[in-house]
Amino acid sequence: MIPITDTRIEEYLNGLAPEDDPVILSMERRAKESDFPIVDRLVGRFLYLLTRLRQPQLVVEMGSGFGYSAWWFARAISITGKVVMTDYSATNIAFARSRFQESGLADRLDFRVGNALDIAREYHDIDILFIDIDKHQYREAIEAMIPHLAKNALVIADNVLWYGKVVEGEDDPDTGGIREFNDFMAGREDFFTTILPLRDGVMVSYKLS
Amino acid sequence: MIPITDTRIEEYLNGLAPEDDPVILSMERRAKESDFPIVDRLVGRFLYLLTRLRQPQLVVEMGSGFGYSAWWFARAISITGKVVMTDYSATNIAFARSRFQESGLADRLDFRVGNALDIAREYHDIDILFIDIDKHQYREAIEAMIPHLAKNALVIADNVLWYGKVVEGEDDPDTGGIREFNDFMAGREDFFTTILPLRDGVMVSYKLS
Repeated sequence: MIPITDTRIEEYLNGLAPEDDPVILSMERRAKESDFPIVDRLVGRFLYLLTRLRQPQLVVEMGSGFGYSAWWFARAISITGKVVMTDYSATNIAFARSRFQESGLADRLDFRVGNALDIAREYHDIDILFIDIDKHQYREAIEAMIPHLAKNALVIADNVLWYGKVVEGEDDPDTGGIREFNDFMAGREDFFTTILPLRDGVMVSYKLS
Repeated sequence: MIPITDTRIEEYLNGLAPEDDPVILSMERRAKESDFPIVDRLVGRFLYLLTRLRQPQLVVEMGSGFGYSAWWFARAISITGKVVMTDYSATNIAFARSRFQESGLADRLDFRVGNALDIAREYHDIDILFIDIDKHQYREAIEAMIPHLAKNALVIADNVLWYGKVVEGEDDPDTGGIREFNDFMAGREDFFTTILPLRDGVMVSYKLS
């Protein structure tokens, strides 16, 4: 495992990103206490920024966990927008629903339990597709979902540097899956793709038509 | 100096960002041969992405060098958009003008020689303000330019991690100036600000109204 960004730099950046939103703070605590993987605050802020810029009507998350990234999307969309959460764990989705209901934003969300790809396929004209499922499934997921994307959609994928394993000798299915996904997206001329070395690597891919 | 991103990761990301645009390749060669500082290809791609998302009519660059970042902005704006280049060096601006003229995009540019702040103040309703001047001048520059920004403008500032010196003991005017600028922007509630640890640190700050 390679520390992608120098840890002192990460600390400095986190120090510049104070937060008083009670939902974010409680979700970050829960993640820490239960050692549950979430995109961190800096990635959350980046998602917020991209969402404000893209102004989506429909965000579909493939792999939502208990709703940390969904919260950042939901805060950034307009009141007519919708964020679809998917997770195989009913407990995760129930937790998200309770947090969102307390905050008054629950009507911006679809809370869906089950297979992320099966659920995502039900939606069309997706403005932002967020991919954070099992890493060996990324390539299959994007290939299936491209026909479901809106004009100038954003595809955002988390963990595309996979703790640095993409540049090491690792050849397990997840590392190989991520490498294959990155090559696939970089090679597509109908998308403009770039990877930010933020936390574990965030791919942002802009559909050019 | 701290390597902000692991060098193997940087190599991997560059490998995923092939380029055949002759202007970009010639500018990258010139930068390398003359050891001239440019934002690199990954930052250039990020600027392109942000520009496609924001769809600006007016981009003002404070500190353009010989036009590398301007080229990424100019390719991403619509044909009715304008990119204002500023540099104190007439040689740099002349080089940029010749490259842009060859490429047919010159009518999207204003080529201005002189003090970046004096020139930038002439413009109003700026959709994207790019700051890449002397580092101790960042704070003064943004304070002067805020009244010149359009609704939901983006402020993009380069070198905001200043080769990692912001987290070291350094206290020279440039390092201090960058720290002060970062604190200033992070503290403003009328902007949503985040820093990407990309190359030497890129701040993206979104004007909330």
